[in-house]
Amino acid sequence: MEAFEITLLFDTYGGMLTDKQREYLDMRYNQDLSLGEIAQIQGVSRQAVFDNLSRTESLLHRMEENIGCVRRDRAASTAVSKIADALKVLEGSEDPKVLAAVETLRAAMDTLKE
Amino acid sequence: MEAFEITLLFDTYGGMLTDKQREYLDMRYNQDLSLGEIAQIQGVSRQAVFDNLSRTESLLHRMEENIGCVRRDRAASTAVSKIADALKVLEGSEDPKVLAAVETLRAAMDTLKE
Repeated sequence: MEAFEITLLFDTYGGMLTDKQREYLDMRYNQDLSLGEIAQIQGVSRQAVFDNLSRTESLLHRMEENIGCVRRDRAASTAVSKIADALKVLEGSEDPKVLAAVETLRAAMDTLKE
Repeated sequence: MEAFEITLLFDTYGGMLTDKQREYLDMRYNQDLSLGEIAQIQGVSRQAVFDNLSRTESLLHRMEENIGCVRRDRAASTAVSKIADALKVLEGSEDPKVLAAVETLRAAMDTLKE
C-alpha cells in the first residue's frame, strides 16, 4: 500500500526530483531492492540510503499535500469511468438529440484522457 | 497574459514556495506593485526584487513542465463544460435509461469539481 502510493507520487512528481533521488527511489520501489542491496551498489551506508529515501518520500508527500495532483488525477479517472458507463446506455439510442450528446461526452472523455 | 499565467501557476504550486517567495509574488501579481515599490517596502534593491521574482517564476514554470497540474486542471474544466452541455440536452428526456445516465453524468461532474 505504502509502496504503491509512493510509486503513484513518483510518477506524478518525479520530474521535480534530482537524478540521485530518482535513482534511489527506482532501486527501492521499481527494482524492489533492499536498503542493504542499494547501499552495496551505491557504496554508502545502509543508514545513508534510509535517510535519502526518507527525505525524498517526505518531499513527495509534501508535494501531494500542497499541490494535490494525484488526488485530482484519481478524480479524473473516476469521472472517465462514469462517463463511459453513461455512454454505454446512451449509445443505443435512436434519438438524434441523445446521439449529439454522446458526441459531446466522447469529447469530454478524450479531454480528460489527454 | 504572462501575469495571468503566473497567477494560475501560483494558485496551483504556491504551496511549494517559501513565505518570502509567496510574499514577493503576491505584491507583484495580486497587489500589482512595481519592482521599485516592492524594493522600497522590503528595504532591498530593485535588482534583488527582480532576481527573486525571476527565480520564483522559473521554479513555477519548471513545476508546470514537470508536473503539468495546471494543464490537467484546464482539461478538467473543459470536460465539466462539455458534460454540462450534454446534460442540458439529456435532462429533458422521458426515457428512464437516459435519466439514469443523467444521474451518472452528474456524479462525474461532481467528482471533477471536488
